[in-house]
Amino acid sequence: MTGRVKGMKEKIIIGVDLGGTFIKFGIFSEKGKMLEQWKVPTKEKNNKEAVMRAIAQEAMQHMEACGYTLEKLQGIGIGVPGSVNRHGRIIHAPNLGWSMVDFEKEMQVFLPVPLFVGNDANVAALGEQFFGSGKGCDSLVFVTLGTGVGGGVIVNQHLVTGCFGGAGEIGHMVIDPKETVTCTCGNKGCLEQYASATGIVNIAKNKLNATDIPSLLRQKEAITAKEVFDAVKEQDALAMEVAEAFGQTLGHALALVASVVDPDMFVIGGGVSAAGDILLDYIEKYYRVYAFSPSKQTPFKIASLGNDAGIFGAARMVMLG
Amino acid sequence: MTGRVKGMKEKIIIGVDLGGTFIKFGIFSEKGKMLEQWKVPTKEKNNKEAVMRAIAQEAMQHMEACGYTLEKLQGIGIGVPGSVNRHGRIIHAPNLGWSMVDFEKEMQVFLPVPLFVGNDANVAALGEQFFGSGKGCDSLVFVTLGTGVGGGVIVNQHLVTGCFGGAGEIGHMVIDPKETVTCTCGNKGCLEQYASATGIVNIAKNKLNATDIPSLLRQKEAITAKEVFDAVKEQDALAMEVAEAFGQTLGHALALVASVVDPDMFVIGGGVSAAGDILLDYIEKYYRVYAFSPSKQTPFKIASLGNDAGIFGAARMVMLG
Repeated sequence: MTGRVKGMKEKIIIGVDLGGTFIKFGIFSEKGKMLEQWKVPTKEKNNKEAVMRAIAQEAMQHMEACGYTLEKLQGIGIGVPGSVNRHGRIIHAPNLGWSMVDFEKEMQVFLPVPLFVGNDANVAALGEQFFGSGKGCDSLVFVTLGTGVGGGVIVNQHLVTGCFGGAGEIGHMVIDPKETVTCTCGNKGCLEQYASATGIVNIAKNKLNATDIPSLLRQKEAITAKEVFDAVKEQDALAMEVAEAFGQTLGHALALVASVVDPDMFVIGGGVSAAGDILLDYIEKYYRVYAFSPSKQTPFKIASLGNDAGIFGAARMVMLG
Repeated sequence: MTGRVKGMKEKIIIGVDLGGTFIKFGIFSEKGKMLEQWKVPTKEKNNKEAVMRAIAQEAMQHMEACGYTLEKLQGIGIGVPGSVNRHGRIIHAPNLGWSMVDFEKEMQVFLPVPLFVGNDANVAALGEQFFGSGKGCDSLVFVTLGTGVGGGVIVNQHLVTGCFGGAGEIGHMVIDPKETVTCTCGNKGCLEQYASATGIVNIAKNKLNATDIPSLLRQKEAITAKEVFDAVKEQDALAMEVAEAFGQTLGHALALVASVVDPDMFVIGGGVSAAGDILLDYIEKYYRVYAFSPSKQTPFKIASLGNDAGIFGAARMVMLG
């Protein structure tokens, strides 16, 4: 517990980040100050009714335990791990096994308050823009490098939600049309296949198998993206080749993104971003090669909210109304 | 002359499309009904003061001749052939030879009324969205295929102007990083090198030189993009190969764009679009291969405003304020 709302006239907001493993919650003041945060395991994740009921009960109980009544609740924002169209309908959430769920509408049965739903990475982008590394930027593109690659696009302080649920799906930009391996999405050559934690490990394994270059990575049993970038920091030649390949693909992809929305800033988050500024060196090097001249100097930053970006962004959705 | 404003209380708007050859003007009602339109040659185009003065004088004189006073003028919107940043500053306009011109500010000296300036293709996108093929769409991506390839991105009925002047610069997305020929922008492998009228002709010439495939195009002295698509309609095998290459590159690029902003619709304009729906067949075929699943069915339309899109969009900028 990090504080209490001053003056009981103020409304509160609940931000929720629905993940396949945990559901994270935050209670915020109406101006976006975080007052409480907690998380619970995602039980029966394939059962959408059970999940929706759990979110509603958890939010209500915790709110009441903290001394807030339903009348004080301005609204709830929820980030979900899937594509969401502009009507708050989940088109497909592979990690939950959900398809075509009218989430905003169905959730109203369990929680009759103003409700805003968005794709988790899109929502995290909103969090980073308003509360994190993008503070003060009107527009930014957020990229999250984890098991997969997600993204979110903010223009004039608002999320670009898109029409069919595909906005900010930077991980599924087909960067190499000649790729023969299929991505989880069914296409071939998606950015996610090269720039996710999984992708980085795959590039490393392929290089280890295909060459005799000595490398610290040869001593590891199971390589992780973190170990690749740790080895880069040790000037490991093979790891540096992996980082170049990663940087070239992601830098190229983000230059393509800049030709569409020309943001104030790129913010890089997700587990892989723990590698820090060295990651940006590799991305920026290639971004500046491929970007169209007016956008060549766009700044890059590492995300600052970590795993909390989702609940912050969910609260921000409610603030924007 | 197509009409008069009913009731003299209504304000009028002037939309201007500044091109390297002509300056086009339109007088519109405050609701966007076109009342007059005309054009004049662009004289002394490298002399920015002369051009600005000409725009101001032409607008004022014509307005007065039509019986409108300056008090009636709500504002002027101007599309310019170059990159414009969010403060109305022209970063670079190669066709005019202008760089770093504070257009909105400098133009105020000649025309002290509310003034809005944007990149010409961006502005045309706004025209197509509000008055043309995109009527009723909240968001769209407009692509103009002419000597070059331009574009504009509309989200929630507003133009994405971007931060540094690179938004909607779809023609300068690097689609083939392995290209060795340099684009006019200095990069290599830009969409414009393959999907512009010039690019289509280049693909055709390369195929004519590299193969012995019989073709109607072999009889032409100087091939144009129109002749390539005319030959496609005659089932000319070589021309159809050119159309496939064109469709693959542009379809792929627009799938990348959809992963960023996921628009309601794509609208294809510019001189090349005179080929009609057959053009869309080739673009859509490859778009649907490369697009991320939620956006695979995004509709495509040919632009409907032709050369008037610019003045309509310029007027719309003023309407949006």
